[in-house]
Amino acid sequence: MAFAALPAMQSLDPATSLLTALVAIFVATKLLGELAQRLGQPAVLGELLAGVLLGRSLLGIVDPSNEVLALLGEIGVIVLLFETGLHTELRSLISVGSVATVVALAGVVIPFVLGVASAIGFGLGHLPALVGGAALCATSVGISARVLSDLGRLESAEGRVVLAAAVLDDIVGLVILAVVADIVTGASIGVGHVARISLVAVLFFAGAVLIGMRVAPPAFGVIERIRMAGALGVLGLAFAFALAVLAKLAGSALIIGAFAAGLVLFVVPQKQEIERSTTTIGHFFVPIFFATVGAAVDLHALANPRSLGIGVALTICGIAGKIVAGYVPWWFRGRKLLVGAAMVPRGEVGLIFAQMGLSTGAIDAGLFGAIMLMVLCTTLVTPPLLARIARQTSTDAFATTPEGEDRPGDGGIDDLVAGASQADESPPVDRSTKAIRPR
Amino acid sequence: MAFAALPAMQSLDPATSLLTALVAIFVATKLLGELAQRLGQPAVLGELLAGVLLGRSLLGIVDPSNEVLALLGEIGVIVLLFETGLHTELRSLISVGSVATVVALAGVVIPFVLGVASAIGFGLGHLPALVGGAALCATSVGISARVLSDLGRLESAEGRVVLAAAVLDDIVGLVILAVVADIVTGASIGVGHVARISLVAVLFFAGAVLIGMRVAPPAFGVIERIRMAGALGVLGLAFAFALAVLAKLAGSALIIGAFAAGLVLFVVPQKQEIERSTTTIGHFFVPIFFATVGAAVDLHALANPRSLGIGVALTICGIAGKIVAGYVPWWFRGRKLLVGAAMVPRGEVGLIFAQMGLSTGAIDAGLFGAIMLMVLCTTLVTPPLLARIARQTSTDAFATTPEGEDRPGDGGIDDLVAGASQADESPPVDRSTKAIRPR
Repeated sequence: MAFAALPAMQSLDPATSLLTALVAIFVATKLLGELAQRLGQPAVLGELLAGVLLGRSLLGIVDPSNEVLALLGEIGVIVLLFETGLHTELRSLISVGSVATVVALAGVVIPFVLGVASAIGFGLGHLPALVGGAALCATSVGISARVLSDLGRLESAEGRVVLAAAVLDDIVGLVILAVVADIVTGASIGVGHVARISLVAVLFFAGAVLIGMRVAPPAFGVIERIRMAGALGVLGLAFAFALAVLAKLAGSALIIGAFAAGLVLFVVPQKQEIERSTTTIGHFFVPIFFATVGAAVDLHALANPRSLGIGVALTICGIAGKIVAGYVPWWFRGRKLLVGAAMVPRGEVGLIFAQMGLSTGAIDAGLFGAIMLMVLCTTLVTPPLLARIARQTSTDAFATTPEGEDRPGDGGIDDLVAGASQADESPPVDRSTKAIRPR
Repeated sequence: MAFAALPAMQSLDPATSLLTALVAIFVATKLLGELAQRLGQPAVLGELLAGVLLGRSLLGIVDPSNEVLALLGEIGVIVLLFETGLHTELRSLISVGSVATVVALAGVVIPFVLGVASAIGFGLGHLPALVGGAALCATSVGISARVLSDLGRLESAEGRVVLAAAVLDDIVGLVILAVVADIVTGASIGVGHVARISLVAVLFFAGAVLIGMRVAPPAFGVIERIRMAGALGVLGLAFAFALAVLAKLAGSALIIGAFAAGLVLFVVPQKQEIERSTTTIGHFFVPIFFATVGAAVDLHALANPRSLGIGVALTICGIAGKIVAGYVPWWFRGRKLLVGAAMVPRGEVGLIFAQMGLSTGAIDAGLFGAIMLMVLCTTLVTPPLLARIARQTSTDAFATTPEGEDRPGDGGIDDLVAGASQADESPPVDRSTKAIRPR
């Protein structure tokens, strides 16, 4: 039926075909998300699989190259990072700063070296090997944050480390993307260029948060006096969009700005109302993000044995590299395995590298397929892997670090899912505050 | 500053420029909506003016021909009509059926005849006069519903008549658009064609509502068991999108399907949760609809004296024709002036006629400008006009028909605005139920 609908859909006007895709996304993500939960998995696994099912390689109902869907998905990841920021206290991020920095840097270097080495081992040239290795550096902060939230671990010590490291990874990823793009297009690699991108990204983040924390409370005090219903929620979101745009204009990434906006609004008295509204609007946009990420994965790579081989090798490097990186900060007292595993999903960030490589001619369709396979596996393996680790954690080591846990059903980002069965197995913890406090 | 930003915006990537436009829309609609309320006007007047301000003829920040913004605005009017349907009991619509049918038909015939006559009086040919007259037939059901809601009159007897008549008008408008398109493209006008479009639209609406009312309660009983947070709200909206798509495929309009979906879900026990979620998601999308309608109006028509003259004449025909139509059902006991005035706004429906006429060459830029002026005036004059009539009504004649009034702050569609000052002046009424009951 779905296959038969495909030629018919192409003749629809843009509004009708967009609405059809949205109906398919909402129904499929909710059904497969629910199924995943009932099987003891995080709901996001079902949402990603819904995307794969609806996407280009199977049903073809969701076309990830459709500009409108791609933009709605981008709004989705911005809303998700804003929500994540709204749940994160700045001090708690700073308190894990050194651990997170080490995890982020190790999580870039180790998978990169492993990936380049195994690609060369498969007889690939230096340029394709470089792109393959670079695609392994990324972490999909959106997927990591959501899986941790599904598992009620976003506000644990490990969750904070992962969040901070993934955000740093995004900044490092921008730098690597710029450098690799310079190399494949034959431009000279300026050390100044690299330093400038890194510095601007870090300075923007610090500046936005510090200035925002002074400006936002009085500004939202005025906004609160607007009597039109919904003004606080929509203008809170507008603040996130504005910081996202400023981040992009400063040479950083949209989601970095959105996350900074969430950190800033953590301190305003109107936070509850903004959070409630953002969560509901997120119910609309966030599934579009996960579905378009899933839909962009091309399963045809599985048909080519050589691509399959390289893909499996890259996947092993990708998983092993990030998990090892979790163990590098030896002084960290939390569960290192949980940190490393949460950094595994490559998601949309890995896809960006693969597409850049293919469009510049640096890699061929075979390696593109292999990278696709790696993105798919690292993204889909994370939710069940992390669920397993979290369950072990909650019955042994984790019980010694009873941080304020974040649980589905408490409101906020957790309400993207409710009643995850894992929650029943974690020990009772102090949940008197939703804030992440430094220990 | 805004002018200086314009060339810079064109060089932004699509995501950044979309987010910038959204920030501008959210901030401007909330500020001008608030200002309108404080001046005793419906908030929607401020939102439309925000669109005019941001649009093509002034600041140029919101480009209504941008496909993504246009689609988000279309989602906005679909959400708005779905919300409106969620507040409307089917029986109450049927009870005003004969009055509404007469108002709708008179409201098409009278402005059309007046418009064609005055256009010919200005020396225009028959074809341009026909398009000008046809553009006067439409009613923007979205704007009518929202103004009535802002004024707390959506669920009064007059509100029900306007809602039913405006929905019928939309069906009649589809027929007229098809006929006029046939004439301007030189195709033969088949009576069968006209009959088919009308019949399909009416049959679809009746069929969707009757079948939906049997299917939806058990379906949403199952959906309620999904434990993922937000599932009910998002799947309620998916139901509205699905009926909108079916309506379009059946040859009717998207918003007719969305309104039918709201009528259907009025009867399900999960209505409250769906309504709450839809209202919050509407806070995001509905302002985009009003802003894009406002932004599409080209003020340059005001510079051409001949266009200005024809535009003023069309505006007078447009306002007078609809108000007279309100008086045609002589047996109706409610305030006829309120009904007629609420049918005045042409909004996006008038723009569709003007654009069809211009693109087929049936009208020139001068008449296009005149129609634009008529659309602008009929749309902007309605909120203050209706506010004035409603105030008189609530202190005299209306006091004798104390229907269950809909007030800002009660939740649902009214919460698109809150604390409209008009509410203070209406008499105390029985508000024990939010449903519209037949009298």
